[in-house]
Amino acid sequence: MPDSAPRLSTLLATAANTQPLNSGDPAVIVLGAPESARVALLGSSNRRTFIARASTLSLALPAMGALGACSPGRKGELADTAKAASGTAPLGTLNSNSKLDSAVVTDEHTMAAATLDSVNASQVAFHRYDPALPPLAAGGTVRLNWRAQAAPVRISPDVVVAAWTFEGDIPGPIVHVREGDTVEFTLTNEDAVPHSMDFHAAQIDPKVAFRSVAKGQSVSFTFKPRFAGAFMYHCGTAPVLMHIGSGMYGAIIVSPRAPLPAAKEFVLVQSEFYLAPAAGGTRQFDYKKMLGTQPDYMAFNGRPNQYIAQPIRVKVGDRVRFWVVNCGPTHPCHFHVVGEQFDTMYLGAPPGTPIRGVQTWDVPAGGGMVFELQCDVPGEFPFVNHGFGHAQKGAIGFLVVEE
Amino acid sequence: MPDSAPRLSTLLATAANTQPLNSGDPAVIVLGAPESARVALLGSSNRRTFIARASTLSLALPAMGALGACSPGRKGELADTAKAASGTAPLGTLNSNSKLDSAVVTDEHTMAAATLDSVNASQVAFHRYDPALPPLAAGGTVRLNWRAQAAPVRISPDVVVAAWTFEGDIPGPIVHVREGDTVEFTLTNEDAVPHSMDFHAAQIDPKVAFRSVAKGQSVSFTFKPRFAGAFMYHCGTAPVLMHIGSGMYGAIIVSPRAPLPAAKEFVLVQSEFYLAPAAGGTRQFDYKKMLGTQPDYMAFNGRPNQYIAQPIRVKVGDRVRFWVVNCGPTHPCHFHVVGEQFDTMYLGAPPGTPIRGVQTWDVPAGGGMVFELQCDVPGEFPFVNHGFGHAQKGAIGFLVVEE
Amino acid sequence: MPDSAPRLSTLLATAANTQPLNSGDPAVIVLGAPESARVALLGSSNRRTFIARASTLSLALPAMGALGACSPGRKGELADTAKAASGTAPLGTLNSNSKLDSAVVTDEHTMAAATLDSVNASQVAFHRYDPALPPLAAGGTVRLNWRAQAAPVRISPDVVVAAWTFEGDIPGPIVHVREGDTVEFTLTNEDAVPHSMDFHAAQIDPKVAFRSVAKGQSVSFTFKPRFAGAFMYHCGTAPVLMHIGSGMYGAIIVSPRAPLPAAKEFVLVQSEFYLAPAAGGTRQFDYKKMLGTQPDYMAFNGRPNQYIAQPIRVKVGDRVRFWVVNCGPTHPCHFHVVGEQFDTMYLGAPPGTPIRGVQTWDVPAGGGMVFELQCDVPGEFPFVNHGFGHAQKGAIGFLVVEE
Repeated sequence: MPDSAPRLSTLLATAANTQPLNSGDPAVIVLGAPESARVALLGSSNRRTFIARASTLSLALPAMGALGACSPGRKGELADTAKAASGTAPLGTLNSNSKLDSAVVTDEHTMAAATLDSVNASQVAFHRYDPALPPLAAGGTVRLNWRAQAAPVRISPDVVVAAWTFEGDIPGPIVHVREGDTVEFTLTNEDAVPHSMDFHAAQIDPKVAFRSVAKGQSVSFTFKPRFAGAFMYHCGTAPVLMHIGSGMYGAIIVSPRAPLPAAKEFVLVQSEFYLAPAAGGTRQFDYKKMLGTQPDYMAFNGRPNQYIAQPIRVKVGDRVRFWVVNCGPTHPCHFHVVGEQFDTMYLGAPPGTPIRGVQTWDVPAGGGMVFELQCDVPGEFPFVNHGFGHAQKGAIGFLVVEE
Repeated sequence: MPDSAPRLSTLLATAANTQPLNSGDPAVIVLGAPESARVALLGSSNRRTFIARASTLSLALPAMGALGACSPGRKGELADTAKAASGTAPLGTLNSNSKLDSAVVTDEHTMAAATLDSVNASQVAFHRYDPALPPLAAGGTVRLNWRAQAAPVRISPDVVVAAWTFEGDIPGPIVHVREGDTVEFTLTNEDAVPHSMDFHAAQIDPKVAFRSVAKGQSVSFTFKPRFAGAFMYHCGTAPVLMHIGSGMYGAIIVSPRAPLPAAKEFVLVQSEFYLAPAAGGTRQFDYKKMLGTQPDYMAFNGRPNQYIAQPIRVKVGDRVRFWVVNCGPTHPCHFHVVGEQFDTMYLGAPPGTPIRGVQTWDVPAGGGMVFELQCDVPGEFPFVNHGFGHAQKGAIGFLVVEE
Repeated sequence: MPDSAPRLSTLLATAANTQPLNSGDPAVIVLGAPESARVALLGSSNRRTFIARASTLSLALPAMGALGACSPGRKGELADTAKAASGTAPLGTLNSNSKLDSAVVTDEHTMAAATLDSVNASQVAFHRYDPALPPLAAGGTVRLNWRAQAAPVRISPDVVVAAWTFEGDIPGPIVHVREGDTVEFTLTNEDAVPHSMDFHAAQIDPKVAFRSVAKGQSVSFTFKPRFAGAFMYHCGTAPVLMHIGSGMYGAIIVSPRAPLPAAKEFVLVQSEFYLAPAAGGTRQFDYKKMLGTQPDYMAFNGRPNQYIAQPIRVKVGDRVRFWVVNCGPTHPCHFHVVGEQFDTMYLGAPPGTPIRGVQTWDVPAGGGMVFELQCDVPGEFPFVNHGFGHAQKGAIGFLVVEE
């Protein structure tokens, strides 16, 4: 059995590899010293000041590509800088500044994404996010050249958010590939803060492929999805909660090589919105609220209730397949279609481990599930997150089955 | 890849089908303009005023049967009225006033259900809700004539809630049918606000079958459950969160045609209670708290901890089957029996996809699962929601196994 | 259909078996009368006063071994005492004082565990919790003699908590046995308040085996795990939320008799920390915050982010098996490894019901799941709870795959 006795010696051994601990050390803010963090970051009431200060603090911390530091305009290999600063070679390559957020909590409203002062929110149009699964590309290789961009996004007729995005929208574009295809991906960062890309469908070293890049830089990598399924992608730059929560996510759908039964296929990305009050026509994302886990809105495909006003339409006799990806950042999606049951859903990579006769199933945050139903009856069928304390904030839409 | 460029044209195209957006338009309160909503609904401190004002606002919004408006005393086809008011023919049949709740959030305590001032709470008796699965009806057809009623319900020896109910109790009656049986259902609304019925076991057009009916009206429909399982039913009138959260839910258990192994069968409906302070001897349901998702109480079968004082009793050698339905409205149920493991539970419609040796499984909000255990050992076995921050609020009971 | 009519008679029948209900009766504090509870417990600002008062109140309530009273220094059979006090023979053996917590909520900060004033927090060393699955004992019988102890635990370089523990650490020791082995367990309580042990891997009468014992007492029991899996153990003394939330939990791993594929095996116990502000160098657990379900920290194996600074290391070509136990007390764990997918996880007792190609799966509070992946690629792979509002509080670590 483990023994808790040798704690002092363990501490000494540990201390050799880590920073000295005192209240003046920025590392202390990582845990348990919100007071010192408050001192350090107090008054960082706008994004630029906060990011700049947090970035400064992060220099004394180990950093890493996959969850790399949120330091704007800093070029080159962050991990190396951190390594030099901390003097801890073997661990210097690992990031821990994703935990700067414990500092952020002390602020009343801490903005995550850009204020975008120069944008006139009234000029940003609302558009329905097309939920149709795009066709597979021919040839087995998909080349994606995407930009990380700060952009205003109108998530409802009267709410514009100041977002961090992939390709200017929330969610980012739907990617559709086949199991074993080749995806050649490049991300170019056009934003003032570092960003990165984490595809859940890739098996790859995150430190290299999912590393953060600063403004004007690009990162490229190639992968072959091994498993079929509904996978999430997102920015993995630290704090990950802030980058997901500010709009940098989407779905990559991997179809199996042997086609599933013919169906009308739709992609639904559930996500939460944590917003500060409106200012200058836009609403910024509020990191403190993200940590509080009580969202203002919840949505399928980035716009609360969009498919109520503009439903998804199919015909009687159609089979419908929903590829549901829950991008969170935090809450499960209890997926349900009113007036229907799923005759099939797949617990493993489809068509693996099918189960029959499901009313509601939990799609975890950061996960995806595939649901199928047969439209035998015409009607208007709401699809919802049946966790209604969340659904009521916008995770409701309509599947209209026409004769 | 999708392109976010043509936003302005999309807006123009969209605008043709939707309402103009300005702060004086009631549609604006749906999202993002809590201030205007506050103006519209401010001071709606009691139920009648709130419901009346919300109802007035909803007239300018599209409405639909399945999630129909919460407008008291209004007869006839709500969708048609809304259609005329909004002038948006193709979308006028779809409801969006389930989102009036974003307005409600601004109020300190917004009561959901009736105050029932005329009821002397002290005269409302506490009774244990019988968890035994009722026997199957003979003949293959079940006829149900239920009433939607405002009613006081004593959920513990010293708490009476002013509820919306099916048949006067929380949960409503347990329905037990067999896969493929015929259910002929009629709901008559005796309450001042519209209500409806959504059976998760039915495959049917919600717009027609699950439509809201006003006081004195009835709705009837017939369905044949296709899949075995533990299904939820609930009022689907908008805002759905308010109607589920105020007591209108229950379980319909569908046994497979080939009987499952012989067992003592019990039905456990988990739900959350969000209550305003006591007034006049009763506690009203608080919609703002429902949206905040921190319940006051959690219960199996409507009464926190009832099966601690009055346990479920079986004998050594019995096989026990729990049909667990999680009516939420929001949180999962991490179902567990202390001192036991489930030798079998069914992931698909029972007996489909059985798994063996489960300590705890997550029943999603709006979902149901079937758990079996063999009582080899006498003793007192607590069954719990092992999410103890919630269990501690009342989702605990005892299974007593006697020699 | 059930009928709610005979309520008054039910109340009378019920009343014969329960306490009279009036505002002066301590039983009333169980539900719905926080005011009287506030009177009774008001000012219980330190642990000793609170526990003493709560204990006094509990004497008028039925009590039981499995979820026995939190009454310090009280020897002998709590159930009997309660039975005598309440005069309710058949139900007197059942505990209900786990619901004293509704009283506790009214206090600003209610400490759960010991203040440990005499401990100089600076002398408590930080140590990494070894996640390696310990080897199986030879011979098929495991004898465990554990102590329940109040102890300071350094959960991060600068946070020491005043915990209730098994064997002085959070989590308690990892137990590793084989399906069908014999576990002979003894718990001796060295703490001032009663404690107990509930092994999820045991099929046994909780009233006897999991009963609470007072300071200086021991409880012993023997069990043979029937199913393989990743099981939780925890203190089951009421209020269970307080005892789990204050550090009394851990993992018992049951390997199947036919070995699983060879792998590097690790145990990850996720848990939440709800802490009061620092006082005297330590932070106490805060029961009111536990009920509020917004944790300060989240951790794998008791130390937020510990495996960022000191990762788990394996080699290319290794197969890795994570036995993930979610001790909660409340939130799910959406388990995910960045840059990897699980080629296999087991939904039933391993190797039962394997599924393939999983990005993220939900481990419920009080449950456990087994995840496997093949390390084909070198790199640094963060493992996370992908519910990032929680992960960001410390449920992140690194799996480093070296060439």
